[in-house]
Amino acid sequence: MGNRTNTILQSAFFRITGVIPVDLAIEQMKKFIVKSYGKKGEDVVNKNYAAVDRGGEYKQLPVDPSWANLPDEDAEVNTDPAFINQVVRPINAQDGDLLPVSAFKGIEDGTWQQSTAKYEKRGVAAFVPEWEPENCIQCNKCAYVCPHACIRPFVLDQEEQKEASFTTLKAVGKQFADMTFRIQVGVLDCLGCGNCADVCPGNPKKGGKALVMKSLESQLAEAPNWEYCVDSVKTKQHLVDVKANVKNSQFATPLFEFSGACSGCGETPYVKLITQLFGDREIVANATGCSSIYSGSVPSTPYTTNDKGQGPAWANSLFEDFCEFGMGMELANEKMRARIARIMTEAQDSDCCSDELKALFKEWIENMLDADKTKELTEKITPLVEGCDCKYCKEIASLKHFLVKRSQWIIGGDGASYDIGFGGLDHVIASGKDVNILVLDTEVYSNTGGQSSKSTPVGAIAKFAASGKRIRKKDLGMMATTYGYVYVAQIAMGADQAQALKAIREAEAYPGPSLIIAYSPCISHGLKAGMGKAQQEQEDAVKCGYWHLWRYNPALENEGKNPFLLDSKEPNWDDFQNFLKGEVRYMSLMKQYPAEATELFNAAQENAKWRYNNYKRLANQAWGTEA
Amino acid sequence: MGNRTNTILQSAFFRITGVIPVDLAIEQMKKFIVKSYGKKGEDVVNKNYAAVDRGGEYKQLPVDPSWANLPDEDAEVNTDPAFINQVVRPINAQDGDLLPVSAFKGIEDGTWQQSTAKYEKRGVAAFVPEWEPENCIQCNKCAYVCPHACIRPFVLDQEEQKEASFTTLKAVGKQFADMTFRIQVGVLDCLGCGNCADVCPGNPKKGGKALVMKSLESQLAEAPNWEYCVDSVKTKQHLVDVKANVKNSQFATPLFEFSGACSGCGETPYVKLITQLFGDREIVANATGCSSIYSGSVPSTPYTTNDKGQGPAWANSLFEDFCEFGMGMELANEKMRARIARIMTEAQDSDCCSDELKALFKEWIENMLDADKTKELTEKITPLVEGCDCKYCKEIASLKHFLVKRSQWIIGGDGASYDIGFGGLDHVIASGKDVNILVLDTEVYSNTGGQSSKSTPVGAIAKFAASGKRIRKKDLGMMATTYGYVYVAQIAMGADQAQALKAIREAEAYPGPSLIIAYSPCISHGLKAGMGKAQQEQEDAVKCGYWHLWRYNPALENEGKNPFLLDSKEPNWDDFQNFLKGEVRYMSLMKQYPAEATELFNAAQENAKWRYNNYKRLANQAWGTEA
Repeated sequence: MGNRTNTILQSAFFRITGVIPVDLAIEQMKKFIVKSYGKKGEDVVNKNYAAVDRGGEYKQLPVDPSWANLPDEDAEVNTDPAFINQVVRPINAQDGDLLPVSAFKGIEDGTWQQSTAKYEKRGVAAFVPEWEPENCIQCNKCAYVCPHACIRPFVLDQEEQKEASFTTLKAVGKQFADMTFRIQVGVLDCLGCGNCADVCPGNPKKGGKALVMKSLESQLAEAPNWEYCVDSVKTKQHLVDVKANVKNSQFATPLFEFSGACSGCGETPYVKLITQLFGDREIVANATGCSSIYSGSVPSTPYTTNDKGQGPAWANSLFEDFCEFGMGMELANEKMRARIARIMTEAQDSDCCSDELKALFKEWIENMLDADKTKELTEKITPLVEGCDCKYCKEIASLKHFLVKRSQWIIGGDGASYDIGFGGLDHVIASGKDVNILVLDTEVYSNTGGQSSKSTPVGAIAKFAASGKRIRKKDLGMMATTYGYVYVAQIAMGADQAQALKAIREAEAYPGPSLIIAYSPCISHGLKAGMGKAQQEQEDAVKCGYWHLWRYNPALENEGKNPFLLDSKEPNWDDFQNFLKGEVRYMSLMKQYPAEATELFNAAQENAKWRYNNYKRLANQAWGTEA
Repeated sequence: MGNRTNTILQSAFFRITGVIPVDLAIEQMKKFIVKSYGKKGEDVVNKNYAAVDRGGEYKQLPVDPSWANLPDEDAEVNTDPAFINQVVRPINAQDGDLLPVSAFKGIEDGTWQQSTAKYEKRGVAAFVPEWEPENCIQCNKCAYVCPHACIRPFVLDQEEQKEASFTTLKAVGKQFADMTFRIQVGVLDCLGCGNCADVCPGNPKKGGKALVMKSLESQLAEAPNWEYCVDSVKTKQHLVDVKANVKNSQFATPLFEFSGACSGCGETPYVKLITQLFGDREIVANATGCSSIYSGSVPSTPYTTNDKGQGPAWANSLFEDFCEFGMGMELANEKMRARIARIMTEAQDSDCCSDELKALFKEWIENMLDADKTKELTEKITPLVEGCDCKYCKEIASLKHFLVKRSQWIIGGDGASYDIGFGGLDHVIASGKDVNILVLDTEVYSNTGGQSSKSTPVGAIAKFAASGKRIRKKDLGMMATTYGYVYVAQIAMGADQAQALKAIREAEAYPGPSLIIAYSPCISHGLKAGMGKAQQEQEDAVKCGYWHLWRYNPALENEGKNPFLLDSKEPNWDDFQNFLKGEVRYMSLMKQYPAEATELFNAAQENAKWRYNNYKRLANQAWGTEA
């Protein structure tokens, strides 16, 4: 059962406590194992049976009675913020009920301090990656795929290197001259999925991987190294173009870290990447679903800030209105910025503002939709307007948080996007507004317990589709392309890291609505290889034709080119059904309903081919020959 | 102002009654004319001014004081059903408040008697068509387009001809040997739009039209002729295949007649046609909107029954759930029919039923999805099961209304379909269920007062788009095609009567979800040529590229053919902007915002071309060459 110990512990609990007769407890546990896992086959049932039996191997350990009253070490000596000690830790210790109302003074509106997740240091992984520098080619792919942002590349200058007590490599790249490089693992934050080690190409010349999974105990010495890197090594992201490629993107500090997502989660690497690219000016409207739970379950907030104190603003709404919720944010933002532009225009004719400021205002108005330019101008404008007492400057100073062009994101799962919130999603993309919708597509309602959505493909087992779904997966992306002015992409990070990055970058840059559908392996899929292979599963999915990579970029059509780009190569269809057999959601259909499984798996393959052929026709269509 | 007399009457009212000083009344009327119609241009304002002035031309007529107490002629001597006399007429006379609760005994659930509209005989048209038999080629196009089902072809046998006191022609067609033909107008039901006369091709050899608009007074003698045709001439629809072509379709009795829709309504001819093709087994789930108002505003019910007492069942739900409402009907129907099949299967092994009945049961099970076959079998099975006392026959007899394959329709406007009910529409078409959705596309929320919908094209003025809509019309049809298993069509009856008929026939026959988007000119468009040209406007729309005709038939793909068929010819784009200028919704933009009008009309044309080119590429794509 790998890392799963809950059945062993439950069995031990019954044996030790005797709350019900032990024989009855064991019998009932085994009965429910058959009920819960019977569909998944004899092998799974037997493994669970074995886990129940292993509950008998408990040992009695003496406990010093004085331990019962030991003070909490952390609470005594740490230098963490008061909010962490006085609010977050009591809640995590299940003492939230004891908090007085006054503990929430100033945040009565529900605002919650960001960055609280990093204080958890759960240390729950059985195995964590160990970095083998001699095999590392500094590609940063490990950091790119990490669902919990707990493996990161650090670049140290000579000053920082002096204080460091760990191995480093000479940093590759001329912008890092005289600097050193290290992959550092946050071993107490890691959930031990192993995707980093799985995607690590290692050094082709030497053969070995640069990351090897080792027991947590053996890696505890890395904890202070992580603290040093995170706290004392300054980011070098300004030395590279972080949007240029996968490697560079990982030099940007992730502003989403240590969430409560499952080990190996297929969704969070996308969420994290967006914070690395746009986090300092990002606003997120999040649908209900897994992503709303791991992004903000009190008291844990994984969204955090950069060294300037800037980070994403995040809020959660319902399945059915998440896109409208995000569009409201965008409209409010547009209005505030239009107001700035109006004041700056009025100021041109006044005597109060300096010529320098007037020129800056003019430049801002001309570039107000350019993120980099407005960042630059904001740094110049802010101190000047704050230092001036005229009515124009005072009002602009009061609106200074709107000076930088924002990046509006709307994030939801397939249940929200394909089904319950689809009417709103359609209305929002139709609006033409500059919002970016990220669909974390697990092909099932993951968080509510595995109900079938319109994204669930033919043949998959889900609630409301217990004998296999009988209708095709909806092609949400193609629907959005019919507007002609919506940027659309289907991505799968594990299949093509560069394509995923490119699509996210293009979507954000496109000055209109964007929709990115991101394939996200999930524990509900039951990967036989385990969630440590979540990235590999994406690669397999694309290679066999289960998932297709494409982009539809209206900007290309404006240049007279075909806006549809098929990024997937011709699949190897022979592998399609083997791929299905590697996931319990399909495999269990074969065990329960073999005849239906054959029929539905063939239908699934036919449908995947049908979709691919449609995409191919679109990609190959003659373009620019019309009247 | 053509048929519009309300302004003249209002002006006369103020002059006669003196409820406020006449000068003030005239001044205020003119002020509000500028407010209401200023946008539509000086010409419209001046016509309204002239109407106000014409209110001064009233004449005093003496009224016999005894008339005040004359009894209602109709109520005294007629032979109409009690429900009409006791419930419908009091409500129409605005005496509904006086009805006792007991008047509604037996219909407490809201059920309303069908066919009440035919008793209204409003006689409100100023002009009605007169049939000129010498120019008639018996094409029946006039009946096809009539929004109110008040012009119909009748075929009389020798018996019926003997009793008739009107002119007839020898009926064309060998199935009508020895029979005569007549186009009969229901002059008291007609609203005088004139579309029948407009579409009449006349006799090319003789040159004249077969329908000419004449004053109602001159045509009152036709009223008893209509009564004779409707009441005493039996339908001859069984002699032809009514689904085969436009001409034949009009020999079928319309089961939707004399609704309260506007004169020249672009929607009702589609609704009526569906009742002619499938009305005896049709169920309608109707969204809120114009179609829910004219289809069932107490006490008027235009849905009616055929000579066997069979007709559509109709109910109305909300904008936001109309498709789910219809899908619920379909599911309930499926369940009841599955139950019949189960009982019939069980009966095979029993001793109770006769061998004849068992054979009929077997045949029914094999053909339960075939409309014609189940009609035939129902006539044989019903008397037999009603005459038998076994438990199987008893139960089947109790379910006899489910024996015939039903035709499930879901009808709504563009507001319901493109916007508020779209999430549900998408969910229902995704389900794969055998429902037929008809979208009556007026490109605006007609019934609620002209708000912009996602169907409203670029440049049109509507509420929430007062300076012209700035984003493109949504392509609802193309979205639906992405499922691959949804039959989709765009039609415009006035542009291609045969294509509209073919699409409706194919949609209904397709054993899965169907979506038909029907272009429907509306008074809210402000046709400069008037609603008497509503059919011609559709032809112009298609010829200039404003509207496109196409069908997507998944059944073709199953045969290895391209499922997408473009039925529109290459438009004459030079006429596009002239077309826009023929409708107030566009024209008023030119008057108010000439610069925006130029920009938006160009954008509208570019978008129409973009859509057409996409359709053309789809229609011309290489097919069947894939792996």
